[in-house]
Amino acid sequence: MAFSTLSWQGTHLRLLDQTRLPGAEVYVDVHNVAQVCDCIQRLVVRGAPAIGCAGAYGVVLAAREARLVPLGCGGPALLGWPERFEHLCEQIACARPTAVNLRWAVDRCLNVARAFLAAGKSVEAIEAALNATAQLIHAEDRAMCAAIGRYGAELLPRDQAVLMTHCNAGALATGGQGTALAVMYAAHARGTRLQVFADETRPLLQGARLTAWELAQAGIPVTVICDNMAASVMRAQKPTAVLVGADRIAANGDTANKIGTYGLAILAKYHGVPFYVAAPSSTFDLKIADGTQIPIEARPRDEISAPHEKLSVPAEAKVFNPAFDVTPAELITAIIMEKGVLKPPYGQSIKASL
Amino acid sequence: MAFSTLSWQGTHLRLLDQTRLPGAEVYVDVHNVAQVCDCIQRLVVRGAPAIGCAGAYGVVLAAREARLVPLGCGGPALLGWPERFEHLCEQIACARPTAVNLRWAVDRCLNVARAFLAAGKSVEAIEAALNATAQLIHAEDRAMCAAIGRYGAELLPRDQAVLMTHCNAGALATGGQGTALAVMYAAHARGTRLQVFADETRPLLQGARLTAWELAQAGIPVTVICDNMAASVMRAQKPTAVLVGADRIAANGDTANKIGTYGLAILAKYHGVPFYVAAPSSTFDLKIADGTQIPIEARPRDEISAPHEKLSVPAEAKVFNPAFDVTPAELITAIIMEKGVLKPPYGQSIKASL
Repeated sequence: MAFSTLSWQGTHLRLLDQTRLPGAEVYVDVHNVAQVCDCIQRLVVRGAPAIGCAGAYGVVLAAREARLVPLGCGGPALLGWPERFEHLCEQIACARPTAVNLRWAVDRCLNVARAFLAAGKSVEAIEAALNATAQLIHAEDRAMCAAIGRYGAELLPRDQAVLMTHCNAGALATGGQGTALAVMYAAHARGTRLQVFADETRPLLQGARLTAWELAQAGIPVTVICDNMAASVMRAQKPTAVLVGADRIAANGDTANKIGTYGLAILAKYHGVPFYVAAPSSTFDLKIADGTQIPIEARPRDEISAPHEKLSVPAEAKVFNPAFDVTPAELITAIIMEKGVLKPPYGQSIKASL
Repeated sequence: MAFSTLSWQGTHLRLLDQTRLPGAEVYVDVHNVAQVCDCIQRLVVRGAPAIGCAGAYGVVLAAREARLVPLGCGGPALLGWPERFEHLCEQIACARPTAVNLRWAVDRCLNVARAFLAAGKSVEAIEAALNATAQLIHAEDRAMCAAIGRYGAELLPRDQAVLMTHCNAGALATGGQGTALAVMYAAHARGTRLQVFADETRPLLQGARLTAWELAQAGIPVTVICDNMAASVMRAQKPTAVLVGADRIAANGDTANKIGTYGLAILAKYHGVPFYVAAPSSTFDLKIADGTQIPIEARPRDEISAPHEKLSVPAEAKVFNPAFDVTPAELITAIIMEKGVLKPPYGQSIKASL
């Protein structure tokens, strides 16, 4: 990849500002927890695995920030480093509610810190361990993306494939080459001729802005369509498969992903097109039995009502803007994860693979 | 209605400029055929019945314009009034390809003119007859909308209903109160409590800009959603019905309508929600056996790639922008037209009612 979605710069985190794509490739340096949370909430960085990695680096920043005792105010100043640190970590973990990878990464780092604290290690030693843990999470994410790509490509014919995807589950959404798009990169690398249809993905157009941008950079032919054109494309193009990412997968295989994924899965079923979810193990949440228990983030009205600050919805009308939906397991042909391809019944295959 | 989608102003046609809604209510005066075609192509006026009415008034303008013999150039100057008139009418009929109402209205006016010509009437008399014919088409459209509203409302419960719609099939799309939205206006008028979910309808946002605007003006609660949220709304809200308009209905009931209608029909079927198409008889095209023969208009790339002139698709990516899709008859629960409610098998019920 000619770009870097997120990278640790020795003392701080650098993020590619995805709100500026495809018009401009601008990087943002992030030095503290408030900035991490802001970047996650404004979708400067987005995609479940990528915000997991960003959260892990955020914990490194939290450890440093917790050393600064706030002056002149009450509560926090009276707390010690561990309490301030845990408080900052909780802010990061709560920055967005739906993707479980964020909480997973923060918890993993927290557990390292707690173990070091319990062993009487210094704050400096904890910081070093957290830095190593964040680097490890990032490296593992890269490796998981590569493995997902290999396993997923095996599901596609060798000569050519017409693929559809929604939102962005690519290099911009992970620490590596992506999840759904890693499959495309792997197939492209072995010589499979691909044609990809990317839903633009309203309201924030991650498909148009991000997926089309990174696939075009990789030399993979991509056509952007409005979300409401997917059914027509399925009928006319008879795609080989639909490939999407995931923000959280329940124990039974129900999958939360970008709003519109559920509808796309219904269209795929109607047209007999295989519907694949690609996600690393950090996306699975076995504490949740099924999709009804996944919290769905509501986003602001003006994402829909005033695109580019131009009024498109009259003030008298209401707007409904959920960021995610839940695709029931029965609509999912297979889940591609870094340990292999999971098939229904997912209750069993997920349990066996985690 | 507090606004007028189209009206004849004695010497010219006045159109509400729908490209400016909901921000501004601006009217455009149209004096010649080139302006009529431009307004139809730029969607200043849109909606199959409304462009039928606009086309009929356009023929009145064509009759006047054909009296002006072009100066200083070849071909057209050598032609007589009938040839110049027919040439201008053909331009109007071809302004947009998918909605059959436009061709239907122009042909109906042309037949009047041809009969008058054959009877040796003067051009002035023909103009008067065309004016009367256009007024009649407009008045009939109003009456058809009202009848569609009455028949459609009978399909809904009396106390309350949750309805979904796509694009705009309202007063802004017709010479009267609309087709799909006429049903809502009729149900609202008799006291049925309505809750309407309007797909925003990318790329041109007719649902967000137009449907929400006119329903809100009428005091009907409306919530705008992105097209890709329809499946989630169906699962959560269990809507009473989906109501949409049509641009052309083939002899077997296959229905061309705004892009996204086909997908919405599949989602409705999956969720067990009745899917109703509302359209006047001018929308039926018995010369066409099924939907495969309906021409689908391709619209410009920048409608998708540069909303509000802000780049959302990188230059290297292709864009696919069909304005319509075809919903197969088997996904349509009933077709509401001005003579009653048509049920499957549509081959028979359509033939019997036209």
